[in-house]
Amino acid sequence: MSEVLERIWQFQQISRVELVEHTGLTSGTITNLTHELIGLKIIREFEAVSGNVGRRRVMLGLDSSLYRIIGLDIGRATLEVVVVDLNGKIIKSIERDMSERRGPDEYFDVIGPLLTETKREIENAGYTVLGLGTSVPGPMDYSTGELLNPPNFPGWSGFPLQRTLEERFGMVTLIEDDARTSAMAERWYGLGRNVQDLVFITMGIGIGGGVVSGGKIVRGTNGLCGQVGHMTIVIDGKICDCGNRGCWETVGSIPGILGRWSGGGSMEQLREAIRQGDAEALRCLEDTLGYLETALINVYNLYDPELVVLGGRLYPYLADYLLPVRNHLRSRLYAFAKDRLRIEPSTFGTSQSAVGAAALLFGFLLSEPVRLLALAEGG
Amino acid sequence: MSEVLERIWQFQQISRVELVEHTGLTSGTITNLTHELIGLKIIREFEAVSGNVGRRRVMLGLDSSLYRIIGLDIGRATLEVVVVDLNGKIIKSIERDMSERRGPDEYFDVIGPLLTETKREIENAGYTVLGLGTSVPGPMDYSTGELLNPPNFPGWSGFPLQRTLEERFGMVTLIEDDARTSAMAERWYGLGRNVQDLVFITMGIGIGGGVVSGGKIVRGTNGLCGQVGHMTIVIDGKICDCGNRGCWETVGSIPGILGRWSGGGSMEQLREAIRQGDAEALRCLEDTLGYLETALINVYNLYDPELVVLGGRLYPYLADYLLPVRNHLRSRLYAFAKDRLRIEPSTFGTSQSAVGAAALLFGFLLSEPVRLLALAEGG
Repeated sequence: MSEVLERIWQFQQISRVELVEHTGLTSGTITNLTHELIGLKIIREFEAVSGNVGRRRVMLGLDSSLYRIIGLDIGRATLEVVVVDLNGKIIKSIERDMSERRGPDEYFDVIGPLLTETKREIENAGYTVLGLGTSVPGPMDYSTGELLNPPNFPGWSGFPLQRTLEERFGMVTLIEDDARTSAMAERWYGLGRNVQDLVFITMGIGIGGGVVSGGKIVRGTNGLCGQVGHMTIVIDGKICDCGNRGCWETVGSIPGILGRWSGGGSMEQLREAIRQGDAEALRCLEDTLGYLETALINVYNLYDPELVVLGGRLYPYLADYLLPVRNHLRSRLYAFAKDRLRIEPSTFGTSQSAVGAAALLFGFLLSEPVRLLALAEGG
Repeated sequence: MSEVLERIWQFQQISRVELVEHTGLTSGTITNLTHELIGLKIIREFEAVSGNVGRRRVMLGLDSSLYRIIGLDIGRATLEVVVVDLNGKIIKSIERDMSERRGPDEYFDVIGPLLTETKREIENAGYTVLGLGTSVPGPMDYSTGELLNPPNFPGWSGFPLQRTLEERFGMVTLIEDDARTSAMAERWYGLGRNVQDLVFITMGIGIGGGVVSGGKIVRGTNGLCGQVGHMTIVIDGKICDCGNRGCWETVGSIPGILGRWSGGGSMEQLREAIRQGDAEALRCLEDTLGYLETALINVYNLYDPELVVLGGRLYPYLADYLLPVRNHLRSRLYAFAKDRLRIEPSTFGTSQSAVGAAALLFGFLLSEPVRLLALAEGG
C-alpha cells in the first residue's frame, strides 16, 4: 500500500494503468489497494482529459478534503504554527514573537492555547488531524524525546518535549531539528519530489544542515549527521559553542559575519554599506562568500547530493551574490560532476521549518497509512 | 529469506527459536526457510552444548563448505586476488607488483591468467564460485561500468571494466572504488557486524572514504559520496588534482606529507628522523596529526558515524601517535557525543580492498540468495 501511495504522491496525478506499470503489481491488486485508499479518504479520483484523443481518463491523486496536519516550529526568537493539507498546501499560519520569552514554561504559555485552539478549529470544521510535527533548534535524544543542550536556548536541556506535547495535546507527535524538518519540507512538499539525495542548509543565527539520502532523513549515531555549520573552515580559528575551532558557523552565520565587520550591528546596515561601496563591507561580503563556497565544496565532496537547498534568515542577504559562487564551485568540483551542480533557494521561506515539521507526519502517512490513521483516531 | 540469512550472519551462531524471536516470523516459516537455505548449502547446522544445563542444541551458521568468492583489487602499484569463503576467511591471496605497468592492456596481461587460473583451481577442487568483486582506485560511472578519470591512473578513463571482466571470465561481477570496498570488508567481515553507520578512511598516495549508512553503502549522485580526501582543510591552499584547493589529500596523503618535509623522499626516512628527534620532522608530524584531527572532526560533524575505521599504507606510520588525536577530538566534539567516539584500525591490513571486493558479493548473497545462485550457475 505504501508503494502505491508513494507513486501517487510522486506523480501527483496517475492512472491505475500507470500504477500497474510503475509498481509491477497486478491490476487486481492495484484495484483493491486504491479502493481501500479511496475509502480511507487518503486519495481520490479525478477526471482528466487526455491530450491526444480528448478521451476522459480517471486519475488518482491525494485527497485534501479530510485530513490536516499541524506543524509547530519552536524557534529561538519566533514560534510558528501551520496547518497543511495532504498536498502540503498551507491552510493557516500563525507566528508569534518569542524574543522576550525563555525556557519551556514561558514557551508553553504560548504553545498551549495556540495548539489547543488550532486543533479545535480544525475539528469543528469537520477535518481530522493526523498529528503534530515539531521542529526544534538543536539536537535531540531520539530515544527519550528530550532536547540535548541546544546552543543559545537556555532552559531547554533535558526537557521532555515529546512526552509533554503528546500528553498535553493528545496527537501523534514527531520531532526533528529545524534543519532536518526544513529538508523534509523540500523532500515531501517542495523540490524533492524527484530527488533522492538532497542537503538543506539553513543559515541564520546558527548554520545547520539536513541530509536526505535515498529519500530518507539521515540522523547519524548521535543525531548529529549534517552538522555542516560545524565543519572546520578556518583551521585554528575561533572556539565555537560546539567545542570545535574555526567552524563555518563562527565566521559564516549572521553573528559570525557581523563579528567580522566593524561598521554596524545588523545585516540591514551591512547590506546598505555594501550598496554604497564601503570597502570594509565589500571585503566582509567577499570573505563570507568565500567561506560559503568552501563549505559547499565540502558538502559536495562529502555527500555528493543531487540538490542543495539554501534557506534561513541569512539567505536573502546573500541571494544576489551567488552567481560567482556557483561558477567557482564548478571549477573546483570533479570535472564529471560539475554539470550536475544544482543549488536552489528554499520553497517555503520563513515557514520552512513549520511546514517541514508537518511533512514529518506526511512521511509517516506515506509509509504506514493504516497505522497512522489508527493512531490518529485513538488520540 | 534475506532477513533470516542476515540474522544468521549477524549472530554467527543462532538457533531456530532465536530466529523466531528476532525476526517475528512463525516457527513454521523459519523451519521452511532454514530447510531451503541448508539445501542450498548457504547455511548449515552445528551442535552446540548449552552452558547452563549441558543440553545439546542445534545451531545454524553460514556454510563455508561449497561457495567461494573471488576479490580483485586493481591498485595503482599493486594487484591482489583473494579467495574467501562465506565467513570472509581468506583461503588464498596473491599479490603482484604493478609499478612498471600502465593502462588496462598491461594490467589485463596479469589479471587474465591470474583470474582464469584462480577460478579453475577453485572449481577443480569442487567448490562453486559465487562471483567476482572488484576494487578500483577511483570513481566509476555505475550506469555504464566504466572508470571515470581516476587520478594518477593513466589509460583507464572510460575503460569498460564491468563488461570486460564479465565477458572474459563469465562471473557475476560487482565493482566499487577502493574506499567503498574497504568499508564493505568491515561491514560484512570485520568490525561492522553490529554497526550500521561507519566511515572507512583509507590514507596512502591518495585519501579516500567509504560511507556505510543504515548498513548500506552510500554512493551519492555522481558516485562521489565520501570523498573525504577532498574536503578543504587549508583554505586557499594548493590546487588539487580534483580541481579544489587545499584538500586534505594535498597535505595529509603520503605525497602531501613528504612535500612538507625537506629531509627525504620516503615515509621510512621520515619515521627515522622523527625517532631521532629531528625538529623539522617532528613539526611535519605534528602538522600531519593536526590535519588528521580536523578532518576527523569534520567526518564526525558531517556523518556522525558510530565507528571510524582507519586504513591504507599511511596508517602504520601514524598509529603510534593517535592517542593525543583522540583526546583532542573528544574535546572538540559536542559534549553528549564525545563518549561514543570510536576509531579503530582496519581489520584486513593490506588485503582490505581485495577482501572488501569479495564482500560486495557476500552482500548480494545476503539480500538476494536465490537470485545470486541462479546467476552464478548460469555463468
